[in-house]
Amino acid sequence: MRQGIKAFVFDAYGTLYDIGSVEQTVEAAFPGYGSLITAVWRMKQLEYTWLTSMMGKYEDFWVLTKRALDYTLRSLHLDATAHRVECIAAAYFHLRPYDDARHCLDGLIAHKRAILSNGSPAMLAELVKFSGFDQCFDRVLSVDTKQAFKPAPDAYALVGETFGVRPNEVVFVSSNGFDICGAKSFGFTVIRVARSGDRDKAMRRRVDERALFDLLRGRAETLNYTADLTVRSLAEIPHIFESPGA
Amino acid sequence: MRQGIKAFVFDAYGTLYDIGSVEQTVEAAFPGYGSLITAVWRMKQLEYTWLTSMMGKYEDFWVLTKRALDYTLRSLHLDATAHRVECIAAAYFHLRPYDDARHCLDGLIAHKRAILSNGSPAMLAELVKFSGFDQCFDRVLSVDTKQAFKPAPDAYALVGETFGVRPNEVVFVSSNGFDICGAKSFGFTVIRVARSGDRDKAMRRRVDERALFDLLRGRAETLNYTADLTVRSLAEIPHIFESPGA
Repeated sequence: MRQGIKAFVFDAYGTLYDIGSVEQTVEAAFPGYGSLITAVWRMKQLEYTWLTSMMGKYEDFWVLTKRALDYTLRSLHLDATAHRVECIAAAYFHLRPYDDARHCLDGLIAHKRAILSNGSPAMLAELVKFSGFDQCFDRVLSVDTKQAFKPAPDAYALVGETFGVRPNEVVFVSSNGFDICGAKSFGFTVIRVARSGDRDKAMRRRVDERALFDLLRGRAETLNYTADLTVRSLAEIPHIFESPGA
Repeated sequence: MRQGIKAFVFDAYGTLYDIGSVEQTVEAAFPGYGSLITAVWRMKQLEYTWLTSMMGKYEDFWVLTKRALDYTLRSLHLDATAHRVECIAAAYFHLRPYDDARHCLDGLIAHKRAILSNGSPAMLAELVKFSGFDQCFDRVLSVDTKQAFKPAPDAYALVGETFGVRPNEVVFVSSNGFDICGAKSFGFTVIRVARSGDRDKAMRRRVDERALFDLLRGRAETLNYTADLTVRSLAEIPHIFESPGA
């Protein structure tokens, strides 16, 4: 798998950074609702990227993140003043990286490394800085440059335009089903990180919101474009590509 | 609101027809899982229309309906043979109309009436026939003609191309948030039917899959395009537009 690979490109939200880490902020603001708000908010946030894209009404990820939280709070009849929404949504600037992220990025130091994310440039700049990953990436790419969210081909095209590489020279890493389909359909070699789903346990017949989120967004999609490889931890990735010369 | 209206156009799934009516079929096939499978299946079905649209990889609604069910069953570690999926998905051909649908359509008999749906032509033909609504519509329009799912503008454009009317001469009726946004953004006068959400009850802090579905898909979206009017029953609509000459 290692031949001809010129860049490793990572999704940010849910792949390098744990979106679940906003739950603490949410729970502090609305005791008892942390898990529910976090799940609905994330689902709506992605829906809004897809819907505004289809409608041809692009708005950046920060705006849509706030809109999705606003929706979530209103649906639950909770306080959704603009100030409240702004303060809670700011948790997206300081997400916790997954434990395996640093190890993976360090292990790939011999290669070009980048983020390609739906996040706005300001969100990504702060995220990378706050987590101390400034030195880990050659480039941090926001789809905002193209005003096209993943899984639109225009979003993935940013990688080739930035590094001058062909799709088949890129390894793209994501835990998000929609992103895996989009990247594979575009022509990247794709590694899926199974963050939550695929656990071989019997599902209960009635589930809570966290289990439902996993059910809906944690599994490999049954569209035509599937990952080339699935790993359980980012830490596995450098080993796959390591070679005597690296 | 009645001035200059030349056509009443209805969404099918969730607006005229109760998608929840597949639950009986699902429950019979997988006892205990009826509610969970039905909720995940519907959410994934719509996601797949949005994702394939963004990827530029259109597949018709019947194919995506089966893919979404396949995903749901696999995620729950249940039997997902192609035959099983095909048999269960066929429930979408025979959905139960809501009780208020007939009354509304009869009340608008003096006007042009149509369906504009994501459903494939075969799905819609059978749906309308089975429910005995054959005589209720001047046209049953499938977005498959344009290979563009709602909320893409191309899908809504089918109405004007069919009836020779401008967007502001159309009243569009839907219970689906994404559809309401899309139709409003396109320029229709939009009536939202509040089928499930908006109940003024305290939400529990932990919810089951049915409540979560309502939370995610039953409320008015917080995007820029909101309905002109919200009703609780389709039966209210003829009264709104009734005039001495009608």
